[in-house]
Amino acid sequence: MRISELSRRAGVPVGTIKYYLREGLVPPGELTSATQARYGEPHVRRLELIRVLIGVGGLSIASTKAVLAAIDDPPASGHDLLGTAHSVIGPTPAASDTALDRARKLVTAWGWTGVDDAPALTQLAAALDGIEAAGLNLDDDVLARYATSMAQVAELDVAGVPIGSPADAVRFVVAGTVLFEPMLLAMRKLAQWDASARRFGHPA
Amino acid sequence: MRISELSRRAGVPVGTIKYYLREGLVPPGELTSATQARYGEPHVRRLELIRVLIGVGGLSIASTKAVLAAIDDPPASGHDLLGTAHSVIGPTPAASDTALDRARKLVTAWGWTGVDDAPALTQLAAALDGIEAAGLNLDDDVLARYATSMAQVAELDVAGVPIGSPADAVRFVVAGTVLFEPMLLAMRKLAQWDASARRFGHPA
Repeated sequence: MRISELSRRAGVPVGTIKYYLREGLVPPGELTSATQARYGEPHVRRLELIRVLIGVGGLSIASTKAVLAAIDDPPASGHDLLGTAHSVIGPTPAASDTALDRARKLVTAWGWTGVDDAPALTQLAAALDGIEAAGLNLDDDVLARYATSMAQVAELDVAGVPIGSPADAVRFVVAGTVLFEPMLLAMRKLAQWDASARRFGHPA
Repeated sequence: MRISELSRRAGVPVGTIKYYLREGLVPPGELTSATQARYGEPHVRRLELIRVLIGVGGLSIASTKAVLAAIDDPPASGHDLLGTAHSVIGPTPAASDTALDRARKLVTAWGWTGVDDAPALTQLAAALDGIEAAGLNLDDDVLARYATSMAQVAELDVAGVPIGSPADAVRFVVAGTVLFEPMLLAMRKLAQWDASARRFGHPA
């Protein structure tokens, strides 16, 4: 198909497709003349994925490029997929040594192993710093209950990873990690709404 | 204290404090001369909260202003706090009618009531659109299990709201909604790491 049909099929403007082609996010089409190229179904699917990663997942062009590179050239082991997914997703803010120590002790208490060097440990510590700085203290008991719920979420995430093809697996892990976040946060807000109405009464 | 000490105490540069004063995020100090003002502890706490909302929560100046307005002038009912918190937090992306219908049916099946007009319903629908567009389909059974875990999270959120002072409550609800998000997402990643190692084996 020509770029105009590709644009229509994928729901991405022609100018944006040309930009993605220049940035290397989308592989070039097959040249049919000096000025025209032909595109196929893989181009449609690639553009749909980019649209979702940027539009729903909120990824930058640079992070999207890293995600697509991981999908095109998947790491060898299933477990390494996750490191790739986490490393391309989101910045790791700075955390205090106190919060890092606390985060390390907490995950040990929760029985989560092998996470000493995970970027998410620093993300957890930075979040705890922020919560404390806002004057909202969470004791270890409450944190453990949040951790139990998020461990259930993670079990579902990992159980869903397809094991047939490495490319499918990395697509699931990377896209799933990014795209499930807004879903989970929306579910949390809806459930808060329900729980709040039960505690404080329904609005008039 | 003078602005220089306020800056040191709150960990916010003097130029940034002056910007916040101009934007009305921080109330003016008490003038002690034509060019100097005195600031108090409430200024320190306000600046710490702003630093956290912007730095950890990732809020824009405009959203931060809306959050602070809600804290300064809390809504009357406990339940309305949540509407305020959700309305100032994050944009609501567009969702397809199909996904909106599905989201409405899902929350009904999950037993969550009073959420028909909640912005989070559209956020859930948009997330489902994105997940489908990326070729990752989640069946209703798996979604229900995710929803169960997020309902546990929401119960903890709502149970933690202090009921003594409306200002404290709104501070907790608004800041908690924003600041707990990075904590929960970091917990999810750490638990994924642990679950992935159990499913796929520990990395070499």
